Amino acid sequence: MTLTLGFLAQHLGAELRGDAHYQVDSVATLAQAQPHQLSFLSNSKYQSYLASCAAGVVILSPKDADAWQGNALIVPNPYLAYAKAASLLHPSIQVAEGIHPTANIDATAVIAADVCIAAGVVIGAEVHIGSGCVIGANTVIDRGVVLGQHCWIGPNVSILHHCVLGDDVMVESGSVIGSEGFGWAKDGERWVKVPQLGRVIIGDQVSIGANTCVDRGAIEDTVIESGVKLDNLIQVSHNVTIGANTAMAGSSGVAGSTRVGKRCTIAGMVGVAGHLTIADDVHITAMTLVSHSLTEAGVYSGNLPVEPNAQWRKNVARFRQLDAMAKRLKQLERSVHEQPADA
Amino acid sequence: MTLTLGFLAQHLGAELRGDAHYQVDSVATLAQAQPHQLSFLSNSKYQSYLASCAAGVVILSPKDADAWQGNALIVPNPYLAYAKAASLLHPSIQVAEGIHPTANIDATAVIAADVCIAAGVVIGAEVHIGSGCVIGANTVIDRGVVLGQHCWIGPNVSILHHCVLGDDVMVESGSVIGSEGFGWAKDGERWVKVPQLGRVIIGDQVSIGANTCVDRGAIEDTVIESGVKLDNLIQVSHNVTIGANTAMAGSSGVAGSTRVGKRCTIAGMVGVAGHLTIADDVHITAMTLVSHSLTEAGVYSGNLPVEPNAQWRKNVARFRQLDAMAKRLKQLERSVHEQPADA
Amino acid sequence: MTLTLGFLAQHLGAELRGDAHYQVDSVATLAQAQPHQLSFLSNSKYQSYLASCAAGVVILSPKDADAWQGNALIVPNPYLAYAKAASLLHPSIQVAEGIHPTANIDATAVIAADVCIAAGVVIGAEVHIGSGCVIGANTVIDRGVVLGQHCWIGPNVSILHHCVLGDDVMVESGSVIGSEGFGWAKDGERWVKVPQLGRVIIGDQVSIGANTCVDRGAIEDTVIESGVKLDNLIQVSHNVTIGANTAMAGSSGVAGSTRVGKRCTIAGMVGVAGHLTIADDVHITAMTLVSHSLTEAGVYSGNLPVEPNAQWRKNVARFRQLDAMAKRLKQLERSVHEQPADA
Repeated sequence: MTLTLGFLAQHLGAELRGDAHYQVDSVATLAQAQPHQLSFLSNSKYQSYLASCAAGVVILSPKDADAWQGNALIVPNPYLAYAKAASLLHPSIQVAEGIHPTANIDATAVIAADVCIAAGVVIGAEVHIGSGCVIGANTVIDRGVVLGQHCWIGPNVSILHHCVLGDDVMVESGSVIGSEGFGWAKDGERWVKVPQLGRVIIGDQVSIGANTCVDRGAIEDTVIESGVKLDNLIQVSHNVTIGANTAMAGSSGVAGSTRVGKRCTIAGMVGVAGHLTIADDVHITAMTLVSHSLTEAGVYSGNLPVEPNAQWRKNVARFRQLDAMAKRLKQLERSVHEQPADA
Repeated sequence: MTLTLGFLAQHLGAELRGDAHYQVDSVATLAQAQPHQLSFLSNSKYQSYLASCAAGVVILSPKDADAWQGNALIVPNPYLAYAKAASLLHPSIQVAEGIHPTANIDATAVIAADVCIAAGVVIGAEVHIGSGCVIGANTVIDRGVVLGQHCWIGPNVSILHHCVLGDDVMVESGSVIGSEGFGWAKDGERWVKVPQLGRVIIGDQVSIGANTCVDRGAIEDTVIESGVKLDNLIQVSHNVTIGANTAMAGSSGVAGSTRVGKRCTIAGMVGVAGHLTIADDVHITAMTLVSHSLTEAGVYSGNLPVEPNAQWRKNVARFRQLDAMAKRLKQLERSVHEQPADA
Repeated sequence: MTLTLGFLAQHLGAELRGDAHYQVDSVATLAQAQPHQLSFLSNSKYQSYLASCAAGVVILSPKDADAWQGNALIVPNPYLAYAKAASLLHPSIQVAEGIHPTANIDATAVIAADVCIAAGVVIGAEVHIGSGCVIGANTVIDRGVVLGQHCWIGPNVSILHHCVLGDDVMVESGSVIGSEGFGWAKDGERWVKVPQLGRVIIGDQVSIGANTCVDRGAIEDTVIESGVKLDNLIQVSHNVTIGANTAMAGSSGVAGSTRVGKRCTIAGMVGVAGHLTIADDVHITAMTLVSHSLTEAGVYSGNLPVEPNAQWRKNVARFRQLDAMAKRLKQLERSVHEQPADA
């Protein structure tokens, strides 16, 4: 796709500095970009790359604009403008056209006219698939599932019975929507399965990465609100609610019945325990265990940083003596401050 | 499914208080239940929900019975009774009927007469599938696998060559049984693959969640004993044994050759190192690293709890000084207690 | 496969002690081996198993050779020699022969003559598959993907558009190569997708376990260099480079744009943050959070060891007082050492 800078400036709401008729056809990094390409600078600490940059145009913010002499698209948020420009220059390509003859579609399924369904897809009874959806090869969409419009479902996905997806939902390869919640009642030494009768309800503009699992609810539903972005290999347990526009990074997880607020960011490998409430606008750093509710917005942590093993072993050994150390410290304080009386 | 309270009381071994002919047809939470529905109270801290509850009948324990005036099914373990009642009211529906014409079944496979095999399933040479099994769409069952009776295998599952499953085993979507163990021998800078020649042997009434991996053994087998319940996204490495009726929550993992005891509970994101022995009746809290064998029953932990980031940074900085602090404390104790001599 | 000890000695470069014409046909552990089997001892702490061992031949190192009276293959690295012997005695069996009639192969794909493609496989436009590759059932290989020679791809794998694999690459069931990087630009409360335009480039002799995800690059490529071994359930984020011959164990992850060096070992559940550089020959122990770059070779840790819960609760409570404790210690040191002046 070839676009003029004038078109891009208008589309991005950017101030154009340079030749409005100049054309670019793709994106590249500052270091790699050629004259036919667009690049961007969103973090001033990489400003030094501009000196030797050969890009045809650079998206940057007003404060970096003087550091670059070439064509510029000047915006308050260069990363956002880059995202939009890259989408224009590199439109995504559909993985399938029409309905492949090897797709197995139940006679009772209702499929909009312009849906693309790839080879080997299996679609169960009473499924509804909205206009503009694309379903990747060998994906399974179980009975009673509803997909809104313009959903993109990758290859080898499993969307299990009666789950409901809104519009513009993306689900990547290997993910499972509507797996059984982990609900077991003790019966002596044995576990008896608690039927998982709820569904997964997913809003609009939700994105779910690869090999992620969202369990169906036990009685009521598991809910992923609109605008949520989930990375790969995430575990969302039964009856969890993830609030609108929250983003969770790879290999994180939320245990059963926890409510995560809106606009939160949850970093990689974070674990949130069950039956908690996480407020809106909470940000949790990597590998933290969230073991109690967080009732106020803010940044929370719980990890320990890496150290050379030799140092680490010493500090860990001391950690195991920490309670004893605290008692010795208290005792010492008593000795020192009451010394006249003791002596 | 509509059932009378009299039938339910008998089936659950419950004391019925109220109308034995009253009928319910489904389950709901205390807050949502309607008069045609059954609900339950298993934790007394939610007793206040009873005041406004509209359920047709509530399962509860003797100590909560006086707090509810309506029809009641009184049992010692309401959650267990609820699990049984819900199974009766909501019988599960088969995902397939008979053998779908698009299933690829090797001519040497032995399939019981009443097995359901969905579209796109691939079954290899010399597989045996017992009576009453249900195999979800696009699942692959590799050569030589044996399934007992009444197994439920979800869509998009991979059960690899020569693994053996008992009766009533459930494997959910995306899981892989019999992946290669991670066995490599160093040859200078390179890694040489150690052939993984064992199988995975799974007992009866085992449940395996979505996107979980159970590696085959290196020489001998990996063993999942009867009654084990594994959640989603779990890693079970080669030559591990998981003892009967142990339950492991999501995103946990056990490294190679470790033996986990019976009736253990392992919470989410726990990691158990390799070549360890974990006793029976061990309970490990979330996100703990188990780096040595646990020889006695009990509760074990190793996580740190979440804190506001600003506080956390201070404590973490001190953690890195912990060994130095301990030495300073010791020195100070010496100074204080030996002061007369030092002075 | 039946082999003489003479043949094995020659193939392994081993010193043979015993009967060169003696034959073995399979491998077993020291405890289980029968006279027709080969076993090995790589760790002297298991030397006591030799006393009652019935193996036909044992691979061991010179320092253990005197502890065993039977046929012996003596080598400096018994585990490596065992790996090679086991590969000879147990050659792997192909999962498919030729191209199954139910495989869906785009007319523009270029498939070498001797490739095996199992049932239900879907191969997209302009895919190239090199000589000797084996593709497992229901796997999806998206448009433009290139596979070198002798790759082994398990069942239910997804290799997404335009990714490139070298020779002798193994990808196990459920893994996803080329999933979308987790790139989002903030637009007020909402997230706007940053197109992920790069590929995944995988070298030769790479092994990727089950249900692992390797994300494609945002602009440039994600790179897995030759000889890398990835276990199951691993997350490799966009624009990561994993250096040659590095091994990563199960459920670990590397966040975006991080460069991991060569010959590193990363244990289970380790998380490496984004935009870091990890030197060559770094070894990271289990469940460590790597939050800053590691510029020197060595062993690094960041976990805390498991403790009985009662002890743990005390130490954790003290951890939250650590900054206050450090200040009290400092104050006390001042009191003690400046006592004459204070008094």
